[in-house]
Amino acid sequence: MAQRGTLGVAVIGTGKMGADHVRRLAEVTNGARVAAVVDVDAERVKRIADGIEGCTAHTDAAAAMASDGVDAVLIASPGPAHEAALLTAFEHDLPVLCEKPLTPGSASALRVLEAEQKVGHRLVQVGFMRRYDTEYAKLKALLNTGQLGRPLMLHNRHRNVATPPGFTSEMLINDSVVHEMDITRWLLGQEITAVTVLKPTPSDNAPEGLQDPQFVVFETAGGAIVDVEINVNCGFGYQVQAEVVCERGTARIGDGHALITNQAGRWGGTIAQDFVERFEDAYDRQVQAWVDATRRGEVTGPSAWDGYATAAVCEAGVRAQTEGGRIEVELVERPAFYS
Amino acid sequence: MAQRGTLGVAVIGTGKMGADHVRRLAEVTNGARVAAVVDVDAERVKRIADGIEGCTAHTDAAAAMASDGVDAVLIASPGPAHEAALLTAFEHDLPVLCEKPLTPGSASALRVLEAEQKVGHRLVQVGFMRRYDTEYAKLKALLNTGQLGRPLMLHNRHRNVATPPGFTSEMLINDSVVHEMDITRWLLGQEITAVTVLKPTPSDNAPEGLQDPQFVVFETAGGAIVDVEINVNCGFGYQVQAEVVCERGTARIGDGHALITNQAGRWGGTIAQDFVERFEDAYDRQVQAWVDATRRGEVTGPSAWDGYATAAVCEAGVRAQTEGGRIEVELVERPAFYS
Amino acid sequence: MAQRGTLGVAVIGTGKMGADHVRRLAEVTNGARVAAVVDVDAERVKRIADGIEGCTAHTDAAAAMASDGVDAVLIASPGPAHEAALLTAFEHDLPVLCEKPLTPGSASALRVLEAEQKVGHRLVQVGFMRRYDTEYAKLKALLNTGQLGRPLMLHNRHRNVATPPGFTSEMLINDSVVHEMDITRWLLGQEITAVTVLKPTPSDNAPEGLQDPQFVVFETAGGAIVDVEINVNCGFGYQVQAEVVCERGTARIGDGHALITNQAGRWGGTIAQDFVERFEDAYDRQVQAWVDATRRGEVTGPSAWDGYATAAVCEAGVRAQTEGGRIEVELVERPAFYS
Amino acid sequence: MAQRGTLGVAVIGTGKMGADHVRRLAEVTNGARVAAVVDVDAERVKRIADGIEGCTAHTDAAAAMASDGVDAVLIASPGPAHEAALLTAFEHDLPVLCEKPLTPGSASALRVLEAEQKVGHRLVQVGFMRRYDTEYAKLKALLNTGQLGRPLMLHNRHRNVATPPGFTSEMLINDSVVHEMDITRWLLGQEITAVTVLKPTPSDNAPEGLQDPQFVVFETAGGAIVDVEINVNCGFGYQVQAEVVCERGTARIGDGHALITNQAGRWGGTIAQDFVERFEDAYDRQVQAWVDATRRGEVTGPSAWDGYATAAVCEAGVRAQTEGGRIEVELVERPAFYS
Repeated sequence: MAQRGTLGVAVIGTGKMGADHVRRLAEVTNGARVAAVVDVDAERVKRIADGIEGCTAHTDAAAAMASDGVDAVLIASPGPAHEAALLTAFEHDLPVLCEKPLTPGSASALRVLEAEQKVGHRLVQVGFMRRYDTEYAKLKALLNTGQLGRPLMLHNRHRNVATPPGFTSEMLINDSVVHEMDITRWLLGQEITAVTVLKPTPSDNAPEGLQDPQFVVFETAGGAIVDVEINVNCGFGYQVQAEVVCERGTARIGDGHALITNQAGRWGGTIAQDFVERFEDAYDRQVQAWVDATRRGEVTGPSAWDGYATAAVCEAGVRAQTEGGRIEVELVERPAFYS
Repeated sequence: MAQRGTLGVAVIGTGKMGADHVRRLAEVTNGARVAAVVDVDAERVKRIADGIEGCTAHTDAAAAMASDGVDAVLIASPGPAHEAALLTAFEHDLPVLCEKPLTPGSASALRVLEAEQKVGHRLVQVGFMRRYDTEYAKLKALLNTGQLGRPLMLHNRHRNVATPPGFTSEMLINDSVVHEMDITRWLLGQEITAVTVLKPTPSDNAPEGLQDPQFVVFETAGGAIVDVEINVNCGFGYQVQAEVVCERGTARIGDGHALITNQAGRWGGTIAQDFVERFEDAYDRQVQAWVDATRRGEVTGPSAWDGYATAAVCEAGVRAQTEGGRIEVELVERPAFYS
Repeated sequence: MAQRGTLGVAVIGTGKMGADHVRRLAEVTNGARVAAVVDVDAERVKRIADGIEGCTAHTDAAAAMASDGVDAVLIASPGPAHEAALLTAFEHDLPVLCEKPLTPGSASALRVLEAEQKVGHRLVQVGFMRRYDTEYAKLKALLNTGQLGRPLMLHNRHRNVATPPGFTSEMLINDSVVHEMDITRWLLGQEITAVTVLKPTPSDNAPEGLQDPQFVVFETAGGAIVDVEINVNCGFGYQVQAEVVCERGTARIGDGHALITNQAGRWGGTIAQDFVERFEDAYDRQVQAWVDATRRGEVTGPSAWDGYATAAVCEAGVRAQTEGGRIEVELVERPAFYS
Repeated sequence: MAQRGTLGVAVIGTGKMGADHVRRLAEVTNGARVAAVVDVDAERVKRIADGIEGCTAHTDAAAAMASDGVDAVLIASPGPAHEAALLTAFEHDLPVLCEKPLTPGSASALRVLEAEQKVGHRLVQVGFMRRYDTEYAKLKALLNTGQLGRPLMLHNRHRNVATPPGFTSEMLINDSVVHEMDITRWLLGQEITAVTVLKPTPSDNAPEGLQDPQFVVFETAGGAIVDVEINVNCGFGYQVQAEVVCERGTARIGDGHALITNQAGRWGGTIAQDFVERFEDAYDRQVQAWVDATRRGEVTGPSAWDGYATAAVCEAGVRAQTEGGRIEVELVERPAFYS
């Protein structure tokens, strides 16, 4: 693909996340255009397409991918629809940015790995957008310098104001802690080998039936211990913090000290109230980085392997949550294709 | 101008700042393209134009502005060339983003004001990019809520690692403190009425002949007192901080606490080493905001009046520096056109 | 005991800790005097007594306690000698400040509990001095207001620069984590019911044979989860931090932001290098509070029960460290005497 | 005076400050006892003396100083009574801790200097207690290492919640900014040579007739520039902050980050509400240091010269406030006695 031309993107799924990606590609990203939008809701998808010059509306992903001017695919449909959309994209040899999860389960993720390997070159980037957050990127860069030595522990805090109706303990692992799984694997460069879930007496803020908060412990292949406070009805704000403890020092992100006030007997600042406020820039950077790499003919972000490995850790996490005790993670051997 | 079409920009001046704007428009900004580049160095400008699809090279600003596909102008040439470029843009009725200073002096700035008024509608945005910095924007938004009450004082710190060769005490006012002049006027919504400059014994880090640091005090039309530590050979980093003291509280920005480490007996973080690291995002947002507004047919940023008023304060500042004591700022009456 | 008279204290043990308490009582504390000192080293104890007006030297604790002018006892001898000294103090009905551990083991601690109950009133305060640290005290006071709701989790960091020669994994529980055991019980007002110890690959800084760092998890009777990073060869400083996560907010201490510098590209401050620098004030306050209460005829600090319960948690901790897995803590029923 | 005996102190004045010093000497300080108390209110002074073993009550300072067991004097009477009390103490050759101001005016302070010189050795310590604050002491120690280079500027913030009834603009200099005068002289080791006072439009919180806040600028003999925000009806808390800007870095104190909470959308901590909360430890340390030095036969704290020089700067400050402009400070030559 020539660097010069803008990248024509087909966006699959125009729910909250998909619509936001359409807006981003149209109004924020440099070098891309929304060439096609796909949704099962024909009326909605037509309305969205009508607002964008040169954009076609589809209810069928395959048709969208086959249409003129589509150079790449952004999958933002519900998780269970990802596998089919990915396989179709592979048939068209189209680069894909696939919102997390790659697929909802390690078995289906394995099928995607196999299909991508058959294509013979990488096409998939999974939407683990925290890797594009400025603070996490600084933390990773610092670890990469080696000046702090080998990581021994990683402490994480993941706090949401409140959960939406219908949020389950299982989603707490699959939708929330999944981010710390990816971050752990990426920051430490090691696979997660075991998961333990500890459950304090639930907060009175937790909806009936939701075990919240929880305290999740990962062990990694390199012998690091990782803990995650997952606390999704904390009431006070959206807060994501991480501290890596290395042999010669520690490094911490997530304090968020931009604007500090003195008022009414207190000093301090505001806490973000949702992930948009905290991570909007990361989403912007993720999509820009994907567009830039794709225009250069490269695939640089989190791979389908990252999607698969995380799915396997989620399965162990849900078992640890249900059964108690320490659950080992089972992964297939990593194909050389993904090394 | 229709919202849909991308904005064709002629960039005047391709030195360090102009080249950076060309890169930004081509690779970062959404909705714009570099339609023409202008420089007195014919070879350089051709080399730059050749790297961008559909971009023409010029050594004459007027020719560039007259060429096909140019919808707007970004002036990044040396200050003394601004007046002529602005007047030419006015003849073509082209919206302009003009790097600071608007012009180097209040007399020439006044001529620009008059010319813009003759056009009959605003065309000029001056490149006071700090207004687009996330932290300053949060500070302004907080002041605008009124919850802290009326501003009484504003404390500023402006620190550079070191000055380039040839940097003079006059430039310290015109190139450095000029930012605090704009920020003061913008944050407080008041004109600056007097300037005093206090000079400590210079730092041993200051080059021979440069009075550095200095301590500058502004008085404003609303009775606020503003102080600026300008300290441009501080050695340790690039640091811009501001604290507004209001009737019911204070608010401070610039601490920069993104990544905090514990290492070798110390906790803390790194300090930016230049304005690019600190304000690159602000430049990106400034140009994006200008492109977005221009495509909507609006002019929203700092106006030519802001450019003029700041030039007048600079003149008072240089006099205060040279003559000592308190120098009053003289401004013409603000035309209704700029209210 | 009349409030007016100064408190005559017999200090048992004049090693590093005991000698420091002698200095403190003589030069810092208000309302006390060192009436007697005891050590097996007759020469040393005579030398110390000679430097203090009205102080007698002894090699036998019982003789010291029986001597004129002794109103109270401070035990700073090695742990194995504590039980005998405590029982002797009980015979003389003397109030005691006993350095931690109360005794090195829950069985001997139980004997102390029984003996104190036979006396019929409380005499013992155990030297858990962190309760007298200003920051921990503020944290406790905030929790007591109830404004943050019920505590759900407690995260602790306990970092030392390096361990002395001969420091063992067992001492890491008994001498270091013991502080977090007491703090957990005190802050949450709940007994610890189970202990799990996780062991990352040791740091290269750890001496041969020492498993360092470790990650210790407590469960409490009220269903809270408590984690402790114990990291005693971290190299960079002595750092004790705690964050309590409650239903409606969190509270954190230990950042230590007294003096903040900008220098050589970094902002931040120094980290304490040992417990003296961090907790000297807490030792001073502890002894002053004990002297003040004793002069009023009261016993107010951590009790013999706290000493016993902590000894039992230490035993579970050492088993968890050795055997792996989750070890339950076994406590006798708490006597009404200690409620 | 022998090191061993406790120091018998006569406290002159038992108003709020004096009564607090009586309590401190009786209940906090090591090595001192209140031997006599003096107040014009005979009933009050008797009530206070009756509460302390071995303490006599007086309405006449000279009688108190002549009474048995008085080894030193602490003057806490109103400023206008200081000169007489000091001269009487000199007659009895008694060491004195004199609350600030030494005397209310440079002329009377000069008389005290002369009288002390006639005694032939130093007797006076002036109660500039900020020098005993842990944070200021750390700042001073850091400056003394020389690692930051020569101080160029000093920025100060001095904020009170609200002023008591009857507080005047003159008191704002003499009672509030006086602390920054002493701190400037002590931290920089330089005399203040000129004072300028800038007055923003007063806050709506300021009582009728009080010009509050003000912005005070000092120039020093070594060419440093010092600014003070004095803001005594700020409403939100009691806050004292200082930042020294040196050739190779800056150092700041006063942020007060002991306990940090996340709650209700905000992170941060509480601000002290009065000087007792902020500086109680400094008062304790000051009196302990004075008692310790006096028992050793030494005088170590701020001298009568410091009291005189500060009085002279106050006079210049009040003139600058009244007359406007820059007022030079006039000092007599510093006697060798005080070097």
